[in-house]
Amino acid sequence: MAIANRRPRVVIIGAGFGGLEAARSLSRADVDITLIDRRNFHLFQPLLYQVATAALSPGDIAWPTRSIFRNQKNVTVLMCEVSGVDIQARTVTDGTAVIPYDFLILATGAAHSYFGHDEWSAFAPALKTVDNALTIRERLLLAFEQAELSSDPDAGARFMTTVIVGGGATGVEMAGAIAELDHRTLLGEFRHFEPAQARIILIEAGPRVLPSFPEHLSAIARASLKSMRVEVRTGVSVTDCDAQGVTLTGGEKLHAATIIWAAGVAASPAGEWIGAIRDRAGRVEVSPDLTVQDHPEIFVIGDAATVRDVDQHPVPGVAPAAKQMGRYVGRAIAARIRGRGAPAAFKYQNWGDLAAIGRKSAVVSLGRFRLTGLMGWLFWGAAHIWFLIGFRSRVVVAFSWWWSYLTFQRGARLISDRDRT
Amino acid sequence: MAIANRRPRVVIIGAGFGGLEAARSLSRADVDITLIDRRNFHLFQPLLYQVATAALSPGDIAWPTRSIFRNQKNVTVLMCEVSGVDIQARTVTDGTAVIPYDFLILATGAAHSYFGHDEWSAFAPALKTVDNALTIRERLLLAFEQAELSSDPDAGARFMTTVIVGGGATGVEMAGAIAELDHRTLLGEFRHFEPAQARIILIEAGPRVLPSFPEHLSAIARASLKSMRVEVRTGVSVTDCDAQGVTLTGGEKLHAATIIWAAGVAASPAGEWIGAIRDRAGRVEVSPDLTVQDHPEIFVIGDAATVRDVDQHPVPGVAPAAKQMGRYVGRAIAARIRGRGAPAAFKYQNWGDLAAIGRKSAVVSLGRFRLTGLMGWLFWGAAHIWFLIGFRSRVVVAFSWWWSYLTFQRGARLISDRDRT
Repeated sequence: MAIANRRPRVVIIGAGFGGLEAARSLSRADVDITLIDRRNFHLFQPLLYQVATAALSPGDIAWPTRSIFRNQKNVTVLMCEVSGVDIQARTVTDGTAVIPYDFLILATGAAHSYFGHDEWSAFAPALKTVDNALTIRERLLLAFEQAELSSDPDAGARFMTTVIVGGGATGVEMAGAIAELDHRTLLGEFRHFEPAQARIILIEAGPRVLPSFPEHLSAIARASLKSMRVEVRTGVSVTDCDAQGVTLTGGEKLHAATIIWAAGVAASPAGEWIGAIRDRAGRVEVSPDLTVQDHPEIFVIGDAATVRDVDQHPVPGVAPAAKQMGRYVGRAIAARIRGRGAPAAFKYQNWGDLAAIGRKSAVVSLGRFRLTGLMGWLFWGAAHIWFLIGFRSRVVVAFSWWWSYLTFQRGARLISDRDRT
Repeated sequence: MAIANRRPRVVIIGAGFGGLEAARSLSRADVDITLIDRRNFHLFQPLLYQVATAALSPGDIAWPTRSIFRNQKNVTVLMCEVSGVDIQARTVTDGTAVIPYDFLILATGAAHSYFGHDEWSAFAPALKTVDNALTIRERLLLAFEQAELSSDPDAGARFMTTVIVGGGATGVEMAGAIAELDHRTLLGEFRHFEPAQARIILIEAGPRVLPSFPEHLSAIARASLKSMRVEVRTGVSVTDCDAQGVTLTGGEKLHAATIIWAAGVAASPAGEWIGAIRDRAGRVEVSPDLTVQDHPEIFVIGDAATVRDVDQHPVPGVAPAAKQMGRYVGRAIAARIRGRGAPAAFKYQNWGDLAAIGRKSAVVSLGRFRLTGLMGWLFWGAAHIWFLIGFRSRVVVAFSWWWSYLTFQRGARLISDRDRT
C-alpha cells in the first residue's frame, strides 16, 4: 500500500462497541484516527432496557465519546452524520466536509427490521437508541396515567396491556423488567385500578424464547417469566400492528396501549455506501480478515457485517463479538503499517450468553458452565458492572440496583414533556 | 359553608413545592384530595440548572408525584392539563373530565416572561421545565461539537459564546456552571480549538447581580464570576434576540450560539381561569389569608400569586415561600372543616437567600449570618441535599457532586437525538 510521507489516516464510522475498541487498539500506532458518530456518546446498549423501564437514567450508561479519548491524542472525534463513501477517492462525507482515509472501518451497527412494514415503527418502537428507550418509558408510564383517568373498562384493559414482539434476550429482559414495574413498583399508587392486573404478553415466532441459548435454559427462562405473570406465546407471529394493538397469525387481536419491537435485524446503510455484497438483512459479506472484497483498506465489523469465523460458525450480533472484531481490525491495521503480513483469519471467542429476567433471576451459559436464578442474576450483575466505563457509572448503577432491590422503586420514572407540547 | 354529608373535596392544581406541601399538610384531614399536574413528577427546580449543564440527570431531581403520595390514601393523583375552572359550579375541567371541588388550591407556578417578545423563546430557552433544561444542555454541548467541525473562525467564535440574560440566582448559577463546563470539563477533549477560549456573558439590566441579596454579597458574587472568566455586564438590556445572538441597548450585537433566558416572570393562566384581579405579570392578587376576593373557597399560592405578608413585605417567588403558603393553606382548610375560625394572615418566614457560583463557591445570606466561598458552597450543598426527596436522590446527587469535584467531569453529557431526527 503506497502511503506518502505522512501518518496513515484511519477513519472509523460508529462509536459503538466495535468502533471504540478499534480506536483503542490503535492507541500506540503511528496513525491519525478520525472517529465519526452521529451522536456525541458511546452507549452501553445491553442495559438500555433498564432506561426504557425507568430503572436507570441515560447518563448512567452513556459516556461522551470525546471524553473517552481525551488522552489518546491520535484520535479526533467528530459528531456528524455520514452520508456516503467514495471508495475510488477514498473519502467519507457528511454532505459538507470531505474526510480522506487510508483505512476505513465501518462499525455502523444495525437497527431492528419490521419485515417490510416500516409503518409499524410508529406503533411499536424498537430498543436501539436512547430516544427509543425514552419513548418506550413514556408510553409505559403514560398508559397507566391514562388508565387512572379512564372510566371505560375496555380502554382501561388496553392501557394496562403491553405486548413485546420477539423472544430473544432483549424481549425477555424487557418482559421481566416491565412485569416488575407494573406488578411491584406501581403497586398501591393508583386509586381507580389495580396495577397488579396489568398484562404483559411476549410473542415469539419460533418454538422457544432465547433461541440462541441451550434448550433447557430457554425452559428455565420461560418458567421464570411465567412466575412473574408474563404470558409467553411461542410459535405465533405478528401480522399487523396499529394504534390499538397487534394482530397475530390466525387473526387473533391483542389490544395493547404499549407495543415494543424486539424482533429482526436490519443493517445500517454502510453496505450501500460502498456497494458491497450484502445478505438479506443488509449486512456486508466480509472476507475472513473482515475486509471487503477487492478493498483490503475497508473493514466492516460488528452488526454491520455478516461474519463466519475460522470454524465457519456465524458470529452472533452481540457486544463481545463487536469488540473482538474491533480489536482484531486495529491490530491488523497496525501490523500492515509496520509492513507485517496479513494476520490469521478472525476467530470469534464465545464467552457465553447471559439474560436477566427481572430483579433477581437470570440465565447464564458459559461453555459447559450454567447459572440460573439468584446466582445467575448476581453473575449477570457483576459482569455488566464490570463492563461499564468509569468509576461513576459503576457506583451509580450498582447503587441504583441495590436500592431497587430493597425498595422495588425505580429512579427515573419521568414522562418527558418534549413529545407532547 | 354548606357541605353535604360527605367528605369535603379539595382540588389542588400543580404539584410543585406549594401544591405538594398543601396536600401533605392535609394528610390527617378528613377530606378527599385530588392533586392534578400536567406532568407525572414533582421537580426540584433549584437544581434544574445542574441538569441543563450536564451535571445531573433529570431522574436525580424528579420524583413521581403518585409515588410521594402512595401511602397518603386521601390523595388521588391525576396527570392531565387543566383548561378551565367553573367558579359557579365549583368544578375544574381538562376539556374531558369534570372534577368538582369544595376547596380549590391553585399552585400553578410561573413561566419566564419575554417582555412581549414571545418569539425570542425559540432562540433563548428559559429554565423552568425538564424539557427546557435538556434543550439548553443540547445546545451548549452541540455548539462545541459544531466548533470542532467548523473551519470558519467567525462561526467558531459564535459557537463558543454563551449569553445568559438575567442576573438573578438562576442566571448567576447558570453562568458559573457553564464556565466550569466550558473551561474545565471540556478541556483537552477537542483537537481543532481550545475550550478555555469560550466566552460566557451574563447580562443584567439592573445595577448589580443578585438584586435581592445584600449589596456586598452581590459584589462578592460578581468577583467570583470574574475569577471564573464570566463577563458580567450590568445596566444593559436585550433589545433583540435571534439565531445569531442578542442585540443590546445601544445597538451592540453579541454573536452567540447559545442564549439562555433567566429574566422576568409571567404567571400561569390560573388567574384567567377564575377571572381574578392580577398584577402586571399575571399573578393573582390574594387576600392576607391567600384566598381570592369573594371566593373564600379558592386559594392561590406560590408563584401564581402576588402576596404581601402581614408586614406588607412582598413575598419572593422562591421554593420556601411556596412551601410555607402550601402549609398555611392546608392548615386553614383543616381548621375551617373542623368549624374553627379563619386563621391569622399568612406571614412569610424568610430563612435566607442562597446562590452557588461554580463548584466551590456560593453566597449565603441568612438574616445577619453570611457565608461566602467554599464555606458558603458547603452550606449550600448540604441545604440542597437536605431538601431532596428520598434516600436515593440524596446519595446519587451527593456522590455526583463529590465525583465532579474531584474529576471536573459531568455525568450526563448527552446530546439527545429526539429533536433532530
